[in-house]
Amino acid sequence: MTTSSLPTSPLIAALSAILDPARVLHSPEDLIPYGFDGTAALSSPATCVVFPETTEEVAALVRYASVNRVPIVSRGSGTGLSGGSVPVPGGIVLCLVRMERILELDARNLTLLAEAGAVTLQIAEAADAMGLLYPPDPGSMKISTIGGNVAENSGGLRGLKYGVTRDYVMGLEVVLASGEIVWLGSKCVKDVAGYSMKDVFIGSEGTLGIITKVMLKLVPKPAAKTTMLATYATMAAAADTVSAIIAAKIIPCTLEFLDRVTIRCVEDFAHVGLPLDAEAILLMETDGHPAVVADEAAQMESIARACGATTVVTAANAEEAAKLATARRAAFSALARVSPTTILEDATVPRSELTKMIQCIQEVAARHNLRVGTFGHMGDGNLHPTFLTDERNHDEMERVERAMVEIFDFAVALGGTITGEHGVGLAKKSFLPKAIGNASLGLMKDLKRTLDPHGILNPGKIFD
Amino acid sequence: MTTSSLPTSPLIAALSAILDPARVLHSPEDLIPYGFDGTAALSSPATCVVFPETTEEVAALVRYASVNRVPIVSRGSGTGLSGGSVPVPGGIVLCLVRMERILELDARNLTLLAEAGAVTLQIAEAADAMGLLYPPDPGSMKISTIGGNVAENSGGLRGLKYGVTRDYVMGLEVVLASGEIVWLGSKCVKDVAGYSMKDVFIGSEGTLGIITKVMLKLVPKPAAKTTMLATYATMAAAADTVSAIIAAKIIPCTLEFLDRVTIRCVEDFAHVGLPLDAEAILLMETDGHPAVVADEAAQMESIARACGATTVVTAANAEEAAKLATARRAAFSALARVSPTTILEDATVPRSELTKMIQCIQEVAARHNLRVGTFGHMGDGNLHPTFLTDERNHDEMERVERAMVEIFDFAVALGGTITGEHGVGLAKKSFLPKAIGNASLGLMKDLKRTLDPHGILNPGKIFD
Repeated sequence: MTTSSLPTSPLIAALSAILDPARVLHSPEDLIPYGFDGTAALSSPATCVVFPETTEEVAALVRYASVNRVPIVSRGSGTGLSGGSVPVPGGIVLCLVRMERILELDARNLTLLAEAGAVTLQIAEAADAMGLLYPPDPGSMKISTIGGNVAENSGGLRGLKYGVTRDYVMGLEVVLASGEIVWLGSKCVKDVAGYSMKDVFIGSEGTLGIITKVMLKLVPKPAAKTTMLATYATMAAAADTVSAIIAAKIIPCTLEFLDRVTIRCVEDFAHVGLPLDAEAILLMETDGHPAVVADEAAQMESIARACGATTVVTAANAEEAAKLATARRAAFSALARVSPTTILEDATVPRSELTKMIQCIQEVAARHNLRVGTFGHMGDGNLHPTFLTDERNHDEMERVERAMVEIFDFAVALGGTITGEHGVGLAKKSFLPKAIGNASLGLMKDLKRTLDPHGILNPGKIFD
Repeated sequence: MTTSSLPTSPLIAALSAILDPARVLHSPEDLIPYGFDGTAALSSPATCVVFPETTEEVAALVRYASVNRVPIVSRGSGTGLSGGSVPVPGGIVLCLVRMERILELDARNLTLLAEAGAVTLQIAEAADAMGLLYPPDPGSMKISTIGGNVAENSGGLRGLKYGVTRDYVMGLEVVLASGEIVWLGSKCVKDVAGYSMKDVFIGSEGTLGIITKVMLKLVPKPAAKTTMLATYATMAAAADTVSAIIAAKIIPCTLEFLDRVTIRCVEDFAHVGLPLDAEAILLMETDGHPAVVADEAAQMESIARACGATTVVTAANAEEAAKLATARRAAFSALARVSPTTILEDATVPRSELTKMIQCIQEVAARHNLRVGTFGHMGDGNLHPTFLTDERNHDEMERVERAMVEIFDFAVALGGTITGEHGVGLAKKSFLPKAIGNASLGLMKDLKRTLDPHGILNPGKIFD
């Protein structure tokens, strides 16, 4: 008897009756890559993985799961950073990467319709080819799927000016927990015909329905862009620059920072010539009409200098701009290679509280004797304190846990949140009640029970 | 016995125990203005009107209503255009106009916190005084309340570039049907800690909860603005201008049109010197950096001429701009004075389908022998066909009903919606199922049952 003819479970047999059996993975070696996502120290072996190619196949799979009360965890490329697509024991992993077509690009209405498994970068490139822009650019956009971006309400490096994924979703096709297929939203710029149900599913992390198609809003591509990199002897001076730019009524597309630990790791990794004695660097980009870009870039440079920047470098061309942006784009990869386990956090505060939050992170890290590099979206108040640790070191992991509690408590006390763009998933579940309060959590649980009465959709994520 | 000491019902007695009795209206003459909103031909006498001054008072009133199963209709200034705040027989009208304070303007975080009864114009002026802009500008903004704007997800004349009310709501305080008070959202630009519950309440027309405070996002005030008015011999040429401007990658803040009937009514009313032989006029505004405004205005003028505009007038200063904008701002008032009953509709289609939709409206009006003036937000595909009729003429009102059915059917067939910015309320309730389909309507009903299990919040609005 060969491996392929081994008797399979009733679940595998049932799924193989719904889909071409070639699209039902169940051998242990095939399942390995589906046991985790992009989140450190979180994994759970998958029981089986299915690859539907149409919405009708997704609906048939969900109907089966609903009738038989089998959990379904939907996923795209698995780049999530809160464990949202980590398998549930005994459940079906529903992987949407074969539903990857861009179905329509409507330049007259500035919309793009894609299947959930389409890769974000392909969408961005399709828009770009028409002179249009799909603004959300999460760090994983080269491989992440648009369905995953919508399910997590992903952010990116242009959030300050352009907002996040939610701001670009005009319509969604969703398979409900019953297996019913529903279309929500329209190509209309304005539509108030009843409750905005699409907003319920955006950011719901696969717990309320399975997103199968996405109608996105596009905007005209900015004609010009200028990229600058400023270095600072203190983090406070970098934060002051951000405040002063906003106070000058400038909303740049990007205001990203790296701290000293991150600068050193990036330089070691990418050799972009960063000053190793700097306490902070700030990547600034402005885009739009050439006259605006020239004007804003000049103002931002003088503001940075007035706030104490040691150096301000302006990219002379696209190649130089890409090089400067590399410092920020490489931050996570650079930090990830210096220790066995990299825990990327996502504390976010109102912009005005940035300096306090960064000081808190540094103080907490020192007190718990932990190595933390912090980078992120300074203009959005969205910080990524990143613990460089080793999950085999139980003592250190306990200190990481305690440090995280302190950091999130402080963020919430400042009017902030435990996650700006990564979602709750498994990683932030225990922090959610304190962050949003019982009344708000109660509403969410009511919504979950209403839309998924048997609890088959990604159970145990966001809350129990 | 004087009028004021007449015995009152148990309901009035109970409400007067919760609030200062001076803030509980129940005499027939006091109730008259609360029996209708801004919607023609829809009214129902109020039983009593209460004026809470704090969130705690709202919560106490809702708890009473919940325990005693009394309907509550919340309202602000009553400027709604779909009958959303028309009283429910035997219910409490909860009027929020005494909760009118602007509580905080935070220039560092670009946010404004206000009570629900704050008037939209006051919010806009408070922002303006800080060099900031609150972009949504519904037609009724001089008297409408921000709570009403959020409950209806109001639009306005700047939607094309700036979006609608939803796009500026960062947080909400809501009194739930149980009387529980919940805060949803934060000052963070990015926040994905669980489902976006605030989006459930935005546009829910008082049927899911009572909004008591609103945290709004502000943007820097544009430094310059140019206003232009183009006239056309055909509506198609005006629509072509809109398409060509978007195709040129320009997103103006305003692209508003009037048709021939509306032009004549406006000229008769406001004497702004409009050409009475024009089939259409287009009000165009671009705002932002002075260089961009100059560049875009020049392009828009040449596009308008290339598309066949008979004349294009550019305002030389703010005074002239205001005069040109008067033509559009006065449209509804001008139409409203020519007939006893003015039924303002709100059909909306994808921008690319505008010409077809306008032709349909004209053809349907002619076939049913009805007088219709159409104006609206051309850049958004949001049309306001306005029936000039008389509700005492039953035969004509029946033809209006039939015409509306045909117009909405056609809008939906074009991928449009029955309401772009006025809401469903009572006026559009019968059209909703066909417009959004049973699956989507089922989700909305599930949500309503979950959040308002006893059906006390604005019952009978949106759907039964």
